[in-house]
Amino acid sequence: MVRIKLIVSYDGTNYVGWQYQPNGISVQQRLEQAIKDLTGITHRVYSSGRTDSGVHARGMVCHLDTEKILPETAWREGLNRFLPDDIVVRHAEQVDEQFHARFSARGKRYRYTILCDPVRSPLDRIDSWQVKKPLDLEKMQQAAQSFIGQHDFAAFRTSGCSAGTTVREIFSITFSGDAPLLYIDVCGSGFLRNMIRMMVGTLVQIGRGKRPVSTIRSLLVDAGSAPSPLTAPAQGLCLMEVWF
Amino acid sequence: MVRIKLIVSYDGTNYVGWQYQPNGISVQQRLEQAIKDLTGITHRVYSSGRTDSGVHARGMVCHLDTEKILPETAWREGLNRFLPDDIVVRHAEQVDEQFHARFSARGKRYRYTILCDPVRSPLDRIDSWQVKKPLDLEKMQQAAQSFIGQHDFAAFRTSGCSAGTTVREIFSITFSGDAPLLYIDVCGSGFLRNMIRMMVGTLVQIGRGKRPVSTIRSLLVDAGSAPSPLTAPAQGLCLMEVWF
Repeated sequence: MVRIKLIVSYDGTNYVGWQYQPNGISVQQRLEQAIKDLTGITHRVYSSGRTDSGVHARGMVCHLDTEKILPETAWREGLNRFLPDDIVVRHAEQVDEQFHARFSARGKRYRYTILCDPVRSPLDRIDSWQVKKPLDLEKMQQAAQSFIGQHDFAAFRTSGCSAGTTVREIFSITFSGDAPLLYIDVCGSGFLRNMIRMMVGTLVQIGRGKRPVSTIRSLLVDAGSAPSPLTAPAQGLCLMEVWF
Repeated sequence: MVRIKLIVSYDGTNYVGWQYQPNGISVQQRLEQAIKDLTGITHRVYSSGRTDSGVHARGMVCHLDTEKILPETAWREGLNRFLPDDIVVRHAEQVDEQFHARFSARGKRYRYTILCDPVRSPLDRIDSWQVKKPLDLEKMQQAAQSFIGQHDFAAFRTSGCSAGTTVREIFSITFSGDAPLLYIDVCGSGFLRNMIRMMVGTLVQIGRGKRPVSTIRSLLVDAGSAPSPLTAPAQGLCLMEVWF
């Protein structure tokens, strides 16, 4: 029995998310089908986390345990032969059994892409959120600093989130871009369901002058102290990397 | 009668190109349909040029003559209501009748995007060309200098190209990127059919060591002096802007 680590990239547009759902096809399902097509055996893959319906990934990590012995490149190239155009295994390697895609993860980086433009953009439509009104970037960057560090993010999760604790640590939030595209990169120890989309939604509300810069600090201290944040749409979000 | 200039952006994936073709839907056809939907009148649009099937644009320019009087924002927003997700009018303005999208154009910039990676990338699949083997960028940049200036580009056009003269001027070729993506921006007075795709195809052959750096100079001096260049695939090409 060996443990294989996979790094997976996908365009989430046509999936119900990473995890199996009754209402459509998930990325995990497609990947497990490709593993079965390649090896002839049913395997279960364990991922670093889930991504919601429509969210993308360039660096999702998962692992599987298998009795099938194949060279690492054969795992990668073999699986890619059975995967559709919108999913790819970027990397495959054998790891020791101490490695666990979820429990060994020390942090993740997500990128949220905003198209700041009154006009939509056909070539950016699958992986950005169009914000038509101007954004005050200085205010957004100032407000984003309040997220850094360890906080109770209870205000930044959907009602469907079942996490035991809502305390998480944000390592950094950086803004970059290639106008009219704005990239917000968020690095952290882990994230609650919809957390980044609600963080970005709040930053956009601040950037549009609809909320004060102080709203983030208030929500982190007392989740009920301000209206619930706007949730930015799924297609702007992409899981970029997972660290171990 | 007024003349309206439009700047149009599109994802060319699902079109047979800019111009009407018997075998499918063209961007021009969709745009003229939207103009009819908006104004109730059939108009013909005149573009700065054509793009081939599968080629994209962020800054195609065209014009139309109309008796319909509408504010500039009404042209833009009205047309966008009738256009599909993969085509948008970025800008509309009234211009004087001296302006002609094709004959007044002084130059164009195209961008060709190469994904330099042995593994394909789902999120870049509609607008890049995947080159699996490593490329010698230094050699490519050195070779690209031979294109600068006025030359006879007879070797860099498809057999279907009906241009009267094959002399064109290239103003600049610049390389930039965000690895594994490589962008090659080509500015010039005008281009023959498939010219940029054949220029990029040749640069990639040079970057892979399959042709000497000198091949470009040879082909510009004597089109028959070396084998015909490789034509890079359509989906990596995008018309970025047109100058007047």
